[in-house]
Amino acid sequence: MCESAAFIRKNDKLERIMDNVVTIDPYEGKVYLTDLLGEQKIVDGTIKEIRLMDHKIIIEETN
Amino acid sequence: MCESAAFIRKNDKLERIMDNVVTIDPYEGKVYLTDLLGEQKIVDGTIKEIRLMDHKIIIEETN
Repeated sequence: MCESAAFIRKNDKLERIMDNVVTIDPYEGKVYLTDLLGEQKIVDGTIKEIRLMDHKIIIEETN
Repeated sequence: MCESAAFIRKNDKLERIMDNVVTIDPYEGKVYLTDLLGEQKIVDGTIKEIRLMDHKIIIEETN
């Protein structure tokens, strides 16, 4: 399946914050992530990079 | 496979601009899309929404 895992990049390290992400909605300096079960996580940050074949969403935190 | 198609939203219509997208890199008001063959497309805009299960990347053009 094509869900992806979301990571926050902090000091060149990737911290995994959510699995099975199915939608990604960046909006006004936040990234809204929703998973397969409809759970949502809101991150203060911007999308840095998305690698679909690696199932990775990399977010740069802004706070 | 998990590639996605990229669309530009214009006047509430979705215009398909690229297939088989594997990486998405938003950077300074542009979205850099790369496909399975390594071809790249650069769009003046921002990511509006990504729906991984529908294999859709929706970009809002800014120019």
